[in-house]
Amino acid sequence: MNTELNNTPHRRYNILTGEWILVSPHRTNRPWQGKTENSKALKKETYDATCYLCPGNTRASGDTNPDYREPYSFVNDFSSLLPDSPEIDFQEGLLKAESEKGICKVVCFSPDHSLTLPLMEVDDITQVIKIWKNEYLELGSEKDINYVQIFENKGAIMGCSNPHPHGQIWSQSSVPTEVLKKSAKFREYWNKNKHSLLSDYLEQELEAGERILDENEHFVSLIPYWAVWPFEAMIIPKRHFQHIGQLSEAEEKAYAEIIKKLTIKYDNLFETSFPYSSGIHQAPTNGKDYPEWHFHMSFYPPLLRSASVKKFMVGYEMFAGPQRDITAEEAAKRLNELSSIHYFNK
Amino acid sequence: MNTELNNTPHRRYNILTGEWILVSPHRTNRPWQGKTENSKALKKETYDATCYLCPGNTRASGDTNPDYREPYSFVNDFSSLLPDSPEIDFQEGLLKAESEKGICKVVCFSPDHSLTLPLMEVDDITQVIKIWKNEYLELGSEKDINYVQIFENKGAIMGCSNPHPHGQIWSQSSVPTEVLKKSAKFREYWNKNKHSLLSDYLEQELEAGERILDENEHFVSLIPYWAVWPFEAMIIPKRHFQHIGQLSEAEEKAYAEIIKKLTIKYDNLFETSFPYSSGIHQAPTNGKDYPEWHFHMSFYPPLLRSASVKKFMVGYEMFAGPQRDITAEEAAKRLNELSSIHYFNK
Ligand SMILES: O=P(O)(O)O[C@H]1O[C@H](CO)[C@@H](O)[C@H](O)[C@H]1O
Ligand SMILES: O=P(O)(O)O[C@H]1O[C@H](CO)[C@@H](O)[C@H](O)[C@H]1O
Repeated sequence: MNTELNNTPHRRYNILTGEWILVSPHRTNRPWQGKTENSKALKKETYDATCYLCPGNTRASGDTNPDYREPYSFVNDFSSLLPDSPEIDFQEGLLKAESEKGICKVVCFSPDHSLTLPLMEVDDITQVIKIWKNEYLELGSEKDINYVQIFENKGAIMGCSNPHPHGQIWSQSSVPTEVLKKSAKFREYWNKNKHSLLSDYLEQELEAGERILDENEHFVSLIPYWAVWPFEAMIIPKRHFQHIGQLSEAEEKAYAEIIKKLTIKYDNLFETSFPYSSGIHQAPTNGKDYPEWHFHMSFYPPLLRSASVKKFMVGYEMFAGPQRDITAEEAAKRLNELSSIHYFNK
Repeated sequence: MNTELNNTPHRRYNILTGEWILVSPHRTNRPWQGKTENSKALKKETYDATCYLCPGNTRASGDTNPDYREPYSFVNDFSSLLPDSPEIDFQEGLLKAESEKGICKVVCFSPDHSLTLPLMEVDDITQVIKIWKNEYLELGSEKDINYVQIFENKGAIMGCSNPHPHGQIWSQSSVPTEVLKKSAKFREYWNKNKHSLLSDYLEQELEAGERILDENEHFVSLIPYWAVWPFEAMIIPKRHFQHIGQLSEAEEKAYAEIIKKLTIKYDNLFETSFPYSSGIHQAPTNGKDYPEWHFHMSFYPPLLRSASVKKFMVGYEMFAGPQRDITAEEAAKRLNELSSIHYFNK
């Protein structure tokens, strides 16, 4: 690590997207006259009669949830994508559009309304991973589904419209922009080195040590060198595989463990139920082989300095490119100093 | 326009970036159990003793603002970029970084703390445009400054830490990601057609009519076909020029007029001081010629359904790509139905 960079505005290169991120480590104590949000205590009701995701409740569509005891998935009542869109290819001068087919699902992580991933048992998180695996394989084998995006929006600040622990899956016929960027970089590296880009990166990070958060037999969590969000993190499997469908039983459990540990650290950072959007990036499901793809999961949490002060990706970020203040190394250090026991259980 | 697309999930192509955006026009009335923000009445104090941008006040740096009567700019006390960063080029295996030089400025639009662009007089907005012009030319001629990003974050929801009417300018040595994307598309089209991509697009939009918001002798405002944010808009000059330094006096005034009209419509939409980030995209300042570049300004406002319900660009958007519900045509229609007189002055 070039330590001079720790005090110098600089750009870091994201090897997965080919894009740069601006880092301004010198700029830490700025005054704040803007808005703050109220951090809420963790909710404690295990069942909420008005929640459309709790077992047995009726949803907006009129459908009733079964009395589920394990993670439960269903087709989103307000799906952004539909399986039966007519085929339209439109081009008129400089206007270009095409119809898109897809299936959107909601995955309830637990019947217990009060929980979140860090407060769930490892075995129960393992069940969530199994449902992701099944959905990836099943949706991926549907006609016209060429990519399956698994994600979670956690917290109202991340647009999550219901606090019941849940994530979403949007699957669709075209491969989305962010995935295409990574596909290109994985392939470029693979063609040149016949090796996974992320395997080599992981090896280098394990050696350097300074951005590693956690490691078990099968997975590593770390702050990527090119992190954009203040406490952005990545979970990378040690074994090079393409998609969640290839996880072994042992890997499923190790994956659940590392998710739990990371999200406990997150909650402990500001003693709040830490908001984030997380997502899995993996191989497309269009029947082609993607030996270069290396499954991984990322967490994009917005909080910066407290439960109420977040990083805004606004003017400069929207028109130029992402910018951050604290370095990835500093973020890793702060998370590593925290207890591994959830503050709620102390 | 293919009207079938109005009810069908589809993707639209952004000719300026080469990226796609997912449109889900069928998905409008969804229930909302999430967070809402309080819309604030317009503030009315013309001077605030605690504001570090008001004339005569002392800033965090200890510097005192002059008793300015016209738009006033100064170097940001908490600049993300510094002019004297040491030259560092770092590469170690897969880690890659380089130092970045730059100058960050704050531009106070008016001495009057209570104003915003839509409430300012056209002549006063013209003064803001003149200061942008000067800054672009002056910063752009500094050593190591190869791009000048002019932007405004308006509203606490957009991370604006002070309600005093102001914008920012971050200028730097490398050309940022978003600008590079547009540079490539402008050049590609220019090389092929020896014509400005945006001139041809503008002509097509003026003919189609359905996304046009406003037009005067020199400028047009419209909702671009590939708009991402619900009420995203663009201001495009009719004359093909590369940067703000080339504006004629008449164009400066017409530009001020169209900014005022657009932002009045915005405020009238939900009868609130409408938040947004706006920014100008124009030619780099590295001394090269960019005949292909076509100056334009964009507004990215987050509000969707009321002064308190915004569109969140979260899980799917971060991991896959942008998604919107109402179509660009619908957004234009809604803005066009509004009065051109600010609700505050009725
Ligand atoms: O400099 P400000 O207004 O405090 O900062 C605001 O705009 C910057 C540029 O878009 C962002 O990096 C910050 O996150 C945001 O809060
Ligand atoms: O489906 P939800 O949870 O209501 O919606 C949330 O996640 C979606 C996918 O990231 C976003 O498009 C919405 O803006 C956000 O509010």
